[in-house]
Amino acid sequence: MDAIVALCKRRGFIFQSSEIYGGYNGFFDFGPLGTEIKKNIKDAWWKDMVHRREDVVGLDSSIIMSPKIWQASGHVDGFSDPMVDCKESKMRYRADQLFFAPVIVDGENVGYVSVLEDGEMQAEAEEKAANLKRKLAIQGELAPIELKEYTEADPSEYEKIPSPATGESGSLTAPREFNLMFQTHVGALSDSTSVAYLRPETAQGIFANYKNIVDTGRVKIPFGIAQIGKAFRNEITPRNFIFRSREFEQMEMEYFISPDADWETCHREWIDWCKSWLNSVGIPNEMMGEDVHPLEKLSHYSKGTTDITFKFPFGEQELWGIACRGNFDLTQHQEYSGKSMEIFDESTKSKYVPHVVEPALGVDRLFLAILTAAYCEDEIDGEKRTVMKFHPRIAPYKVAVLPLLKNKPELVERAQSLYEKLQRRHSAFWDASGAIGRRYRRMDEVGTPWCVTIDFDTLEDDTFTIRDRDTTEQKRIKEEELFSLLDEKLY
Amino acid sequence: MDAIVALCKRRGFIFQSSEIYGGYNGFFDFGPLGTEIKKNIKDAWWKDMVHRREDVVGLDSSIIMSPKIWQASGHVDGFSDPMVDCKESKMRYRADQLFFAPVIVDGENVGYVSVLEDGEMQAEAEEKAANLKRKLAIQGELAPIELKEYTEADPSEYEKIPSPATGESGSLTAPREFNLMFQTHVGALSDSTSVAYLRPETAQGIFANYKNIVDTGRVKIPFGIAQIGKAFRNEITPRNFIFRSREFEQMEMEYFISPDADWETCHREWIDWCKSWLNSVGIPNEMMGEDVHPLEKLSHYSKGTTDITFKFPFGEQELWGIACRGNFDLTQHQEYSGKSMEIFDESTKSKYVPHVVEPALGVDRLFLAILTAAYCEDEIDGEKRTVMKFHPRIAPYKVAVLPLLKNKPELVERAQSLYEKLQRRHSAFWDASGAIGRRYRRMDEVGTPWCVTIDFDTLEDDTFTIRDRDTTEQKRIKEEELFSLLDEKLY
Repeated sequence: MDAIVALCKRRGFIFQSSEIYGGYNGFFDFGPLGTEIKKNIKDAWWKDMVHRREDVVGLDSSIIMSPKIWQASGHVDGFSDPMVDCKESKMRYRADQLFFAPVIVDGENVGYVSVLEDGEMQAEAEEKAANLKRKLAIQGELAPIELKEYTEADPSEYEKIPSPATGESGSLTAPREFNLMFQTHVGALSDSTSVAYLRPETAQGIFANYKNIVDTGRVKIPFGIAQIGKAFRNEITPRNFIFRSREFEQMEMEYFISPDADWETCHREWIDWCKSWLNSVGIPNEMMGEDVHPLEKLSHYSKGTTDITFKFPFGEQELWGIACRGNFDLTQHQEYSGKSMEIFDESTKSKYVPHVVEPALGVDRLFLAILTAAYCEDEIDGEKRTVMKFHPRIAPYKVAVLPLLKNKPELVERAQSLYEKLQRRHSAFWDASGAIGRRYRRMDEVGTPWCVTIDFDTLEDDTFTIRDRDTTEQKRIKEEELFSLLDEKLY
Repeated sequence: MDAIVALCKRRGFIFQSSEIYGGYNGFFDFGPLGTEIKKNIKDAWWKDMVHRREDVVGLDSSIIMSPKIWQASGHVDGFSDPMVDCKESKMRYRADQLFFAPVIVDGENVGYVSVLEDGEMQAEAEEKAANLKRKLAIQGELAPIELKEYTEADPSEYEKIPSPATGESGSLTAPREFNLMFQTHVGALSDSTSVAYLRPETAQGIFANYKNIVDTGRVKIPFGIAQIGKAFRNEITPRNFIFRSREFEQMEMEYFISPDADWETCHREWIDWCKSWLNSVGIPNEMMGEDVHPLEKLSHYSKGTTDITFKFPFGEQELWGIACRGNFDLTQHQEYSGKSMEIFDESTKSKYVPHVVEPALGVDRLFLAILTAAYCEDEIDGEKRTVMKFHPRIAPYKVAVLPLLKNKPELVERAQSLYEKLQRRHSAFWDASGAIGRRYRRMDEVGTPWCVTIDFDTLEDDTFTIRDRDTTEQKRIKEEELFSLLDEKLY
């Protein structure tokens, strides 16, 4: 993970936001190459999800919408994490990431310890318990430390549990719900009537526009509405680089089906579609898994959710959630707006509020998965190299054009004409300086799939040397072959 | 304008945000076709500004950044409009859009009238003055009504000017500055230490990342950093459809040059580049103008600003501002962050903080200009039609594939195979139902440049009928000719 973060900084993929001001926690900026990768991810998804499917249309709704939407969707009341305050230090913690345990010596409770969630927290808690025992100068046997979440504490325990900030008890409050939506005010008044939210997901923009699209488009059940856009969550503990940030981008799709449709088959088809799409952008099957949410953990309206997981450097985590949400969202909006969300199904001549299957993917999370899958260190002719084995669709540059020598006008001219032709359609890179081996290495590190060298043979037979990033193999190729290759690999 | 707004709704280009909840003022959603057009605008700009220029790199910085950035840039203190409150009605107004005048009868001031900015406001004020005179039962000659902005009122006049809401005086406050940045809180605390802003422009994200890009890229003066992204302004009076909204998207570029460079030539080059780029997406020269900001109206640091204007249905207005901002922004960030913003110029072997030329364009504003330029009503064979003459780069569908009859499997099959081939690279539309003339008309209204019909001749000689949207001319064409045509027109 450290190697990936360092490469991202070094090659201008990803910077911490506001770095010159010491950074800004939970926000990231994408540098020149990161911007290209992110755009390629989004474009590939859009092409395959919207352009190449006849049953899906696109949408681009606003980030700030009427607050009534978030009341209807349940986010105003329910989109929250449990928080606990330390009245002394003014620090706040996620109550489900703060763990505590009674310290029991010879069966007697002599105090409490607390730790923040962490791989080492058990050891840390045991050390704290031993310290407490020593400090209190108590003899006897320390019982095993059994950590529990602060959310599970008995109200009588709140004032006995030490604050992680001060180490003293008496300053922690009871847990309370903290809404994760960023709040702002729209219009000149700054009171409760003007409260608005930054969307915490793009999905509600789809539900809110569903009626407009049904009324103005020529959609027929089953059909999907897809959207890519920013979403915001005021995470208390953003972490794992761009895996969990406060500002992120989502690619979501709501697939509307008949209430009588075989939703399990549809669900499975979408899971399979998503996995095969992930293959198409360079995520291999062996790095993926499936996590089926147990029925008892689902929301009351949900029929089933399966996450496609990915083996991140910090563990296997959710990458793409595919949820069957029933008709919960549309019926909520129907109730709150008073507008009918029913659709007339031509095939069955019946009217109903459709159900949905929702594949929801985070662009940034996929970006990190792609970085993880692509990162590779190997040895070429005894020399170590770092190579990003991006799928050609995702690579920031598709091809680099390298005139062998920069002081030979005939070479440079031929290279320039090829470069300009490539640029019309692709993102190409021009590099005329340095030893050819070093130029290859630079392109390996940013994941350029092909390098094309214009050398003296080119002037004879108009062929180029094309070098493959992954195998480092080189062969001679003609211009039309190069274009066919790109055409084949990139669409 | 009404025709355009109606078409946008009817054909799913643009909807008012949160329409099922009665709408949300100043926010818009882009429907299936609007999303494609917007994406095409952004993609065309990115291709020409970033991919096809060797001296420009891209960036994608976060919407929420450290608030220190907005202190350094001057937005926290200065990005405001003058506001006035009515204490009685709780209404707020832009003080520069609220006009007032003393009512003078026979040389004596007998009261005040006030009106909100509007084409008819002079007549409205005169009527109000006449009414006041009648109400007070005063004889004599009413002096001409001379309206002034509320910002120009003498403090002694504030309490004499009637509120537009109540018609009574005594409730208006002195004007005060209202900051247009949307404010939120980041992190668990909701106090002054956690205040953050939604960016009101993308440009500062570029300045804040300039050092990172200089340090990690291989940029050489002169060079540019380009960015596309959302920006937010809490406009008190959003208006003119998507021309002035509260959430919008910008395409900005900062072009860094030496302080000794001939900035006037560079400025002119960028104005010309921008105009010719606008041509390339369908804005004709005759709908554009140039508005050179008078020197006395420029900020102290600015050397010159020229707006490329467009003849919108509601008047000629700014479309693309090209500003020479000197080194103001970088020196501000240098001072506030304590990090050097100097660059070493290889060509002159000198170190300096570069100056910038900034072409700043709004995606939504350009979208509206494109709609305006493309909208056309004409008559074909005695039948009226509405046609959107979008440039092929901008058109939501590039080509429609129409099997002549949907119940002839050989036609449908051939059409389907062409459609799938087209979809690999382009946004294509499939339409098999209805009379062919009606299908053409539908495509005219959404601006599809070419319709390809698969008919019985196709089965003989494998040619198609291609119909041109603008001329409605039809000719026979082979598949490879169709692909060459698209290739030529779309890149």
